[in-house]
Amino acid sequence: MARRAAIIGGGVIGGGWAARFALMGWEVRVYDPDPEAERKIGEVMAGAVRALPMLFEAPMPARGAISFHDSLAEAVEGAEYIQESVPERLDLKHKVYAEIQGACDPGAVLASSTSGFKPSQLQEGAARPGQIVVAHPFNPVYLLPLVELVPGEVAAPDILEKAREILTGIGMYPLHVRAEIDAHIADRFLEAVWREALWLVKDGIATTEEIDNAIRYGFGLRWAQMGLFETYRVAGGEAGMRHFMAQFGPCLSWPWTRLTDVPEFTDELVDLITEQSDAQSGHMSIRDLERLRDDNLVAILRALKMQGAAAGRLIRAQDDRMRGPLEETVPMVTVRRVVPVDWTDLNGHMNEGRYGQVFSDASEELMTHVGADQAYIDAGNSYFTAETNIKYLAETLAGEEIFVETRVTLGEGKKLRLWHEMKRASDGEVLATGDQFMLHVSLETRRSCPPLDHVRENVERLARMHAEA
Amino acid sequence: MARRAAIIGGGVIGGGWAARFALMGWEVRVYDPDPEAERKIGEVMAGAVRALPMLFEAPMPARGAISFHDSLAEAVEGAEYIQESVPERLDLKHKVYAEIQGACDPGAVLASSTSGFKPSQLQEGAARPGQIVVAHPFNPVYLLPLVELVPGEVAAPDILEKAREILTGIGMYPLHVRAEIDAHIADRFLEAVWREALWLVKDGIATTEEIDNAIRYGFGLRWAQMGLFETYRVAGGEAGMRHFMAQFGPCLSWPWTRLTDVPEFTDELVDLITEQSDAQSGHMSIRDLERLRDDNLVAILRALKMQGAAAGRLIRAQDDRMRGPLEETVPMVTVRRVVPVDWTDLNGHMNEGRYGQVFSDASEELMTHVGADQAYIDAGNSYFTAETNIKYLAETLAGEEIFVETRVTLGEGKKLRLWHEMKRASDGEVLATGDQFMLHVSLETRRSCPPLDHVRENVERLARMHAEA
Repeated sequence: MARRAAIIGGGVIGGGWAARFALMGWEVRVYDPDPEAERKIGEVMAGAVRALPMLFEAPMPARGAISFHDSLAEAVEGAEYIQESVPERLDLKHKVYAEIQGACDPGAVLASSTSGFKPSQLQEGAARPGQIVVAHPFNPVYLLPLVELVPGEVAAPDILEKAREILTGIGMYPLHVRAEIDAHIADRFLEAVWREALWLVKDGIATTEEIDNAIRYGFGLRWAQMGLFETYRVAGGEAGMRHFMAQFGPCLSWPWTRLTDVPEFTDELVDLITEQSDAQSGHMSIRDLERLRDDNLVAILRALKMQGAAAGRLIRAQDDRMRGPLEETVPMVTVRRVVPVDWTDLNGHMNEGRYGQVFSDASEELMTHVGADQAYIDAGNSYFTAETNIKYLAETLAGEEIFVETRVTLGEGKKLRLWHEMKRASDGEVLATGDQFMLHVSLETRRSCPPLDHVRENVERLARMHAEA
Repeated sequence: MARRAAIIGGGVIGGGWAARFALMGWEVRVYDPDPEAERKIGEVMAGAVRALPMLFEAPMPARGAISFHDSLAEAVEGAEYIQESVPERLDLKHKVYAEIQGACDPGAVLASSTSGFKPSQLQEGAARPGQIVVAHPFNPVYLLPLVELVPGEVAAPDILEKAREILTGIGMYPLHVRAEIDAHIADRFLEAVWREALWLVKDGIATTEEIDNAIRYGFGLRWAQMGLFETYRVAGGEAGMRHFMAQFGPCLSWPWTRLTDVPEFTDELVDLITEQSDAQSGHMSIRDLERLRDDNLVAILRALKMQGAAAGRLIRAQDDRMRGPLEETVPMVTVRRVVPVDWTDLNGHMNEGRYGQVFSDASEELMTHVGADQAYIDAGNSYFTAETNIKYLAETLAGEEIFVETRVTLGEGKKLRLWHEMKRASDGEVLATGDQFMLHVSLETRRSCPPLDHVRENVERLARMHAEA
């Protein structure tokens, strides 16, 4: 049975939580008095359904149902995890917690999306303060892995541990913030930059577009993969962090930023920024911008994944959690996935070369299954592809679910031949076929040689099985 | 003849400039009294040679020579562009400028890498203040496109225009900073974040690694592609920027950051950060970290390039500048490029599927050449690949230069068949062959049909030429 999460408060953040839980196989119950909640969450869900599965090579779990409830008590019933994303008013949050705690499982995690309140403020006056933690996510919640997990001093260790397990399980990175502090960690940086950016616009130094370009063509690219300190460690060169600090240290006392000066939040400032933002991005609707953002994030996250670096490592780990063993059906389903945006051209069609990659991935799955896995390769043995023949029968688009059926058509000695059919999941149409001939090689001599016994036996067994069927 | 640039002051920044200019085909003359300059620049160059060509699908221009000179006058002789990256001391910079201006072409751009000085400070007392601008780059200079171009009030318009043309030509994005201000634009943000980060470490709230994770698993990913304002515009939802500001505005007066408080730059603080940084990244050498950083940046930039977004658009534009027309040799060289890191597995070998992509790219070049270009496709006609046969003959690694020789083996009516040989540039070894059969289709009916006359004639002409050779 699916595990159950309750989402209290919809909107962009609550909707992002609902989408991530549902796509990761959880049953989701939503409570939000806003009559528009269902529509709003539906829109966030549409974005998430398109983008999140693109991050993974492994198939997603069966999607959980999202239901909407008129009573808070009904929404939290049987939930293991409750995420509160109501407006940032402490009295409102306290009222909501009292109602939740009157109805929920005392062992459930009760987490808040707040960026403005510390856990001690949330826990104050609660029936079970130890049940409440901050779990502060980042928009879009369904793609960005970071969640700041702040227990404060009174949250129960088993609640914290449970929150960590659940958040990791839905593909997030719970960053345990050990000391509670205003705005946790990341928003302190965001606030410092936002404040400075408002001054630059107000003072006429730069427009919103110039500021965005100053970020995304420069240090934004560094931060996406290393953050701040590791970047500077590298900048310090051979002498490392200590050298960097000695160089940069004195600048700290220079008057570069406006610091305490708070730009007055006047109508003029709002107008100025709104006008500049319209000039910069007004040619695109918010939906188009969201899609652009999601496509870019998917592409960046997948790029990092292929490097095995930064947030890409987190995506790999989630793949591993989701990937099950192959079943020995005839044919075998070796690949089941969606076509990600980095596999398509600007028209959204899957690039020719990626058909070959899908078949190569299919072979790799089969080889892992017969025992020619990473350890086998590390020990100096592998199959190399000698020849492939691909027939392109139909087009496929970004976001479409595909699967590959594979048959072993030859498995004798050092020879392995596979027949792949790539099909569209929605209607079973064959998109392409691949005939792949492989040779077993010694990675030491770089020459062909017979596989080790257990691999040979598995290959021969599958070949017999597939020939008979 | 190659255009000439002078690099005054080596080190990581000067070396990055030297590498970028040389790889973009400029002759580079370096002046740096540091006896280690040649070694240091050589190391930066090694990183640049590996990484920069990976960004492009087009072949790089012939690499320019880098020479080292004992006299500043000799280094700047005949240079169109002079980049000063000496230590951040104003008296030293003034002295260097006097010497440069005594020897250089008065029409050359004299640009400073300074982050700490405004152009008016640099221009003060100069023989020709109008020749001097700030061109502030970001490390690694050979990969990150951003350069803040600050003319101040006295720089000559033709010098500014020339700087802009040259910087764009070497693949950078010159961000014209219209008003001079301390630290230009980007470093004001970096300083605000750095200051706040030091407090968080000093106060024991978070370690260097936790802070890096808070950035790279969250908003760093957003900033790499949209920057600050466009991200928030999307976060505002349908109501856009105005709504976002109304929500976030009040927080500005909350005491989230430490603001004016400057953390005292004590030995204890340096020790604390150095120790944490060692614990975080000390298992890797600076060279390993640089390579990791460069691989990640290449992968992210290429991911954005495939989306046609953000910094990826700049890389595409540079490709277009570098790409020349195909020559009608027999066979035709349709692809010449290096194998980028996003095409290889973790062992550094080019993935099987990418061989197909290289051949698909080769076909696209040939099709563009015969007139089946984007405009032709937009008008509703195209060639679709029906079948490919690939033979894998040898492995190739990230960073290796490869090229493809293509012959038209059939060009009759709606049929087009190409024979590709992919070779390693260093020794001409054939890495793979591809036999590709294509059919001309109407994108409207999705059925095969003859090509338009000019395309048919070109295809038939090439087929005859290749059959005869």
